[in-house]
Amino acid sequence: MANTVCRWGILSTADIARKNWLAIKNSGNATVVAVASRNVEKAQKFINDCQAHAPFEQAPAALGSYEELLARTDVDAVYIPLPTGLRKEWVLRAAAAGKHVLAEKPVGISAADVREMSAACAKHNVQFMDGVMFMHSQRLNALRAALNDGHSVGRLRRISSSFSFAGSDEFVKGNIRASGELEPAGCLGDLGWYNIRFTLWAMNYQMPTKVSGRLLSQVRRSDSGSPVPTEFSGELFFDGDVSASFYCSFLNENQQWAVLSGSKGFIRVPDFVCPFFGSEVSFDVTNARFAPRGCDFAMEDHTRRVSVPEYGNGAPNAQETNLFRNFSQLALSGKPDTAWDDITLKTQQVMDACLASAHQDGKLVELGR
Amino acid sequence: MANTVCRWGILSTADIARKNWLAIKNSGNATVVAVASRNVEKAQKFINDCQAHAPFEQAPAALGSYEELLARTDVDAVYIPLPTGLRKEWVLRAAAAGKHVLAEKPVGISAADVREMSAACAKHNVQFMDGVMFMHSQRLNALRAALNDGHSVGRLRRISSSFSFAGSDEFVKGNIRASGELEPAGCLGDLGWYNIRFTLWAMNYQMPTKVSGRLLSQVRRSDSGSPVPTEFSGELFFDGDVSASFYCSFLNENQQWAVLSGSKGFIRVPDFVCPFFGSEVSFDVTNARFAPRGCDFAMEDHTRRVSVPEYGNGAPNAQETNLFRNFSQLALSGKPDTAWDDITLKTQQVMDACLASAHQDGKLVELGR
Repeated sequence: MANTVCRWGILSTADIARKNWLAIKNSGNATVVAVASRNVEKAQKFINDCQAHAPFEQAPAALGSYEELLARTDVDAVYIPLPTGLRKEWVLRAAAAGKHVLAEKPVGISAADVREMSAACAKHNVQFMDGVMFMHSQRLNALRAALNDGHSVGRLRRISSSFSFAGSDEFVKGNIRASGELEPAGCLGDLGWYNIRFTLWAMNYQMPTKVSGRLLSQVRRSDSGSPVPTEFSGELFFDGDVSASFYCSFLNENQQWAVLSGSKGFIRVPDFVCPFFGSEVSFDVTNARFAPRGCDFAMEDHTRRVSVPEYGNGAPNAQETNLFRNFSQLALSGKPDTAWDDITLKTQQVMDACLASAHQDGKLVELGR
Repeated sequence: MANTVCRWGILSTADIARKNWLAIKNSGNATVVAVASRNVEKAQKFINDCQAHAPFEQAPAALGSYEELLARTDVDAVYIPLPTGLRKEWVLRAAAAGKHVLAEKPVGISAADVREMSAACAKHNVQFMDGVMFMHSQRLNALRAALNDGHSVGRLRRISSSFSFAGSDEFVKGNIRASGELEPAGCLGDLGWYNIRFTLWAMNYQMPTKVSGRLLSQVRRSDSGSPVPTEFSGELFFDGDVSASFYCSFLNENQQWAVLSGSKGFIRVPDFVCPFFGSEVSFDVTNARFAPRGCDFAMEDHTRRVSVPEYGNGAPNAQETNLFRNFSQLALSGKPDTAWDDITLKTQQVMDACLASAHQDGKLVELGR
């Protein structure tokens, strides 16, 4: 069985793991065998809830510690959505236990952490990947085709993106989010990670040479040393006259748009992180044309929609399902693909530099080539 | 006649004046009586072209100098689309001649210039206004209503906008555009003026306390001392945790979108400067909703379109026509409205500060209260 179905263990009962439970169920090449929490009742409740909605034939085991889960021989891969401040330890332990590792973002407190995690996974020959679902959407192929077709965007010069949601007061100031130790990058890590990743994807992973960042709002827990960003803006500067700006926030209601603009037109993705509910994922290409005729100065819109037959969520072809299917396939192959490590490391490096800039009032921070 | 119809003179035969010729014709309370160029044949050709498309009963007079135009007693108001480096002189002379003044943007080389022009107009009791057409669209009323309704945007926190077009090589490096003396603010003056104005409008003209700017690309004419921005990004910081980013460029194809986002949702205006051709102007309001249900994590779009019955261009109810109608009405009333001077000055002050920041590598520049 281990050769055709990847057997997953989930470390922690974070809400996002419910979505991934369904993704694993829909993947066709994976199953959940165990869920661990520091509290076994919590793990059992999580399992009961999920089984009621999307049952596996055999209910996964509820475990009262992460160690127990890593000790199991029937677990091939683990999904780790623990707080960032705790994640490294468990990634290293999972790798040492021979488990493939899917880590939530931001993957590390720093790029040094990511290097350490990546090295551990390489050493133990297990796959390492972050949980950015949009990387696994078929929409990216259509976007790449439009970016490369020479007429939709032409020469790419400017990328803009916003990713935000309005967290409740409890969410924003809650124990984990406002802790400088557990989540030092705050919204930059939780949301900006996607802005940065999407930008790097658009740039074919070319690294910016300089970045700047601005802390627009922050919270500080009374017992925590350092404040945590709740609203952040950044700008990335690339060789070849390309630049990118992004904004992320826990204080502004749902926004997840990205614009890729160039010498011929622009692409707008209205929902680049979590596609809107529906049976297609899409984006718009605008090649607006200024059409003066005598004293008539018309600006013609010329927007066309490009859509891909892929459900927004919860379906066998949805991006989160593709993520688990792709990961499971890599895990089952026994040949980890370290391209994912590189992408994760680059994302972290850019994020670290943005945060460093913000702590210097937006001063440009250079990135090594 | 002078009391019901505002009689216009146009200084220079810039292309944009053709659009405004039609706007004056469509206004219902204005007419063109003279067009001046440094070359009378050029003025005559301009008039012939425009008369062929949108004829006035009596063809305007072609004049070979701006002085001649200002000396005419049958001219009530002048439209001045001259290069920025030349504009102040002619605004001052027009005001001294008792002519109402509609000036193209960027209005001045600096805020000091704008103050001087504004003072001259006040002294001679003539109207002073810049040529930002979108200020006169009925869409702004609908936008304000949405901004104020408490649920479309909620508390405004972040404004983003892009305004760009891909100028030809000749355009970008042409005599005027690349001249640090004639157009020192380059694309920031020509395009960023609109980004800044729209942002200030959204903020009810509250001034930012700090701004930063980045020169992304520039050109320098061989005989000109200083380089001219061809691509520029800026960020504005307001008291009350509101921030705004903008991008403008002569190098990226047509973009003119603005996003106003807040605690409840966001507004997107796809064409905030020159509305797309059509019989309506519109914007979208998105109140996306995250709707988890069990393991199903749906992100619902909830975008609605708000439209206003106003032609995009070239019609009696189009924004450029409204501009000339509104201006003509003010001119005919004999009671200049200095609110327009204030708005123009603020726009220039923010623009100046962005440029100053860019010349200090993006360092925050504070604005006086």
